Amino acid sequence: MADQNVKELTTDDAPVKARGLEGVIALESALSSIDGQKGELIYRGYDIHALAEGASFEEVVYLLWNGELPTEDELETLRSELQSERALPAPVMNILRHAPDDAHPMAVLRTAVSSLALYDEEADAMNDEANRRKAARVLAQIPTVIAAFDRLRKGLDPISPLDDGSMAHNFLYMLNGEEPGEAAERVFDVCLVLHADHGLNASTFTGRVIGSTLSDLYSAVSGAIGALKGPLHGGANREVMRMLLEIDEQGADPVEYVTEKLEAGERVMGFGHRVYRTMDPRAAILRDMVKELSEEEGEMKWYEYSMAILETVRDEKGIAPNVDFFSASTYYQLGLDPDLFTPIFALSRTAGWTAHLLEQWADNRLIRPRAEYVGERDRTFVPLGQR
Amino acid sequence: MADQNVKELTTDDAPVKARGLEGVIALESALSSIDGQKGELIYRGYDIHALAEGASFEEVVYLLWNGELPTEDELETLRSELQSERALPAPVMNILRHAPDDAHPMAVLRTAVSSLALYDEEADAMNDEANRRKAARVLAQIPTVIAAFDRLRKGLDPISPLDDGSMAHNFLYMLNGEEPGEAAERVFDVCLVLHADHGLNASTFTGRVIGSTLSDLYSAVSGAIGALKGPLHGGANREVMRMLLEIDEQGADPVEYVTEKLEAGERVMGFGHRVYRTMDPRAAILRDMVKELSEEEGEMKWYEYSMAILETVRDEKGIAPNVDFFSASTYYQLGLDPDLFTPIFALSRTAGWTAHLLEQWADNRLIRPRAEYVGERDRTFVPLGQR
Repeated sequence: MADQNVKELTTDDAPVKARGLEGVIALESALSSIDGQKGELIYRGYDIHALAEGASFEEVVYLLWNGELPTEDELETLRSELQSERALPAPVMNILRHAPDDAHPMAVLRTAVSSLALYDEEADAMNDEANRRKAARVLAQIPTVIAAFDRLRKGLDPISPLDDGSMAHNFLYMLNGEEPGEAAERVFDVCLVLHADHGLNASTFTGRVIGSTLSDLYSAVSGAIGALKGPLHGGANREVMRMLLEIDEQGADPVEYVTEKLEAGERVMGFGHRVYRTMDPRAAILRDMVKELSEEEGEMKWYEYSMAILETVRDEKGIAPNVDFFSASTYYQLGLDPDLFTPIFALSRTAGWTAHLLEQWADNRLIRPRAEYVGERDRTFVPLGQR
Repeated sequence: MADQNVKELTTDDAPVKARGLEGVIALESALSSIDGQKGELIYRGYDIHALAEGASFEEVVYLLWNGELPTEDELETLRSELQSERALPAPVMNILRHAPDDAHPMAVLRTAVSSLALYDEEADAMNDEANRRKAARVLAQIPTVIAAFDRLRKGLDPISPLDDGSMAHNFLYMLNGEEPGEAAERVFDVCLVLHADHGLNASTFTGRVIGSTLSDLYSAVSGAIGALKGPLHGGANREVMRMLLEIDEQGADPVEYVTEKLEAGERVMGFGHRVYRTMDPRAAILRDMVKELSEEEGEMKWYEYSMAILETVRDEKGIAPNVDFFSASTYYQLGLDPDLFTPIFALSRTAGWTAHLLEQWADNRLIRPRAEYVGERDRTFVPLGQR
């Protein structure tokens, strides 16, 4: 990103029109940076490869919220806070119990997060300390919401959260009713690290626009969940898995399947990105993880389908896979239902959303672009009886 | 707005930086246009004065959704559709019953609207017909949510919606348990007309950003409610009324009260607007209505306080009142609780939000600006034990 080349708009300048706001810088952020040419992603100055290899999700949360990696004491304080906030208020659990089994899990999550505000006495307190407590609370509670709804819709009782262990460990436990193995926990934790922040994507931007009116954290996070629900944003990893499952069910050859799709002018989900011109670094990390996981489990087909599709799309279209492409098979190999992929994306991205909100509020300015009016003018009003 | 003067950004241009997106045109819209210099507002080519005088809220809803004012038959069809969709699903009413009495009404409304998706079989259908049906449904149900919660928190039973009459009539009936007089219905209806749309304000923009990911209408509208909740956006009319009530309770002189505030460098709510350089035309219409209503009721004090404040701020600061300034005393004179002002704003603006969503989806493009990264770079990762 050629930041030195940026033109700053002043009040003397003519309005600039940029559909979809492409090429427009809306704000400054010190959270994450993407170099689309080099395929680099950094959080607070640290390369995503180093963080995926060496830091837990909780360390990354601390880093995003505070700008520095935690010491052991600082990490322990954050872990304790997150552990202590996992339980849901009874009326929120009630909403989950009354949600239809076939409800969209993102609609359930959006509603549950919105409802958490009703039972948080600090919901509308806008000082930094209160906002940090709410950030921890909502991050701790989202896994409980997702796991409880998933069990309820399967006719199972929700499982109370553990009061210790990592978020990754506790989430897989609440979902499956048994403590996860070390490898599964580690893979899931890396997935959370990889999705924690990613510049000013549509959901993060949504959260900051909402926050910029000085509305509260629950408004911003539930709005961001609504944006992430869209198929053009967070919904893609679910679509990738649908494709892999369809190939499997049909017994199709993945190369032929994708070639036909491309020839019919259809979009193959999980490829291309507005920012990356080369391979998404998160996709590369996940690819290696899926491979390892597949070898351990002796089930290589999802990895093989994925690689065949990757090579076909790359050769035919010259576009590289994005993070959704490999997160799909990773989550599936961990035993997660495809329609939980986007809620899990939300779980992880809540770290980034809340970090962006804290940053927004530290130096707030209303985010409000204009529309160009292209409609009718000077129409004469005709009363109802004369139309 | 000097549209002829706009510079359109191409992919060859350097990125443009505009904090808060001021001066940036994010999209084209044929819905409403504001001329800040002249103090003009039009919906679909019709001046707001003509619409406030001659059209009901339902006619304006039809106009915003369809681009034309309805014939009598077309209006009747829309009215019937809206009338038939007023009731709430039982689990949504249940959420309202379990909301604490002191919950923020906008947090309750945001949660209830989000939850409506769970009980709408068309929630995720993205064709235009389904989206229009959902727009009508959510617009019809929002008044029921607001009225039911207001009664429940006062220990009263919710009142079932009427199956006939206007939205204004039915809402005031559900709130108070008695049918409103003609004057009250008419004033309230004009308020709904005046707040129905207003260019690309922060909540409308939020809705379009969410919609641009191809997420659903409930995600977009609940996100917009979250944005409108903010004190820098829809929360202002509530703050104006707080000020008027404080003046009244203290027995203060409004001129002295405001002068002190200004001298202390405090902001007086309900003044100034990023777009209008002269008086907001909606404020002028409301000012005349408050005056009339006050004269009819023989209670002039709110009008008098308002005019004294208006003149003081105008003389001292040279800024004019915005729509919030006079909607506060109008709603108060109609017997509405100050903390319902913003939900009522949401009720009205749902017409505009949904019209903007239909417009967005008719020619969709993801709305995704960039952030300028101003944080650290090239930091060396140090493992936890060595920090």
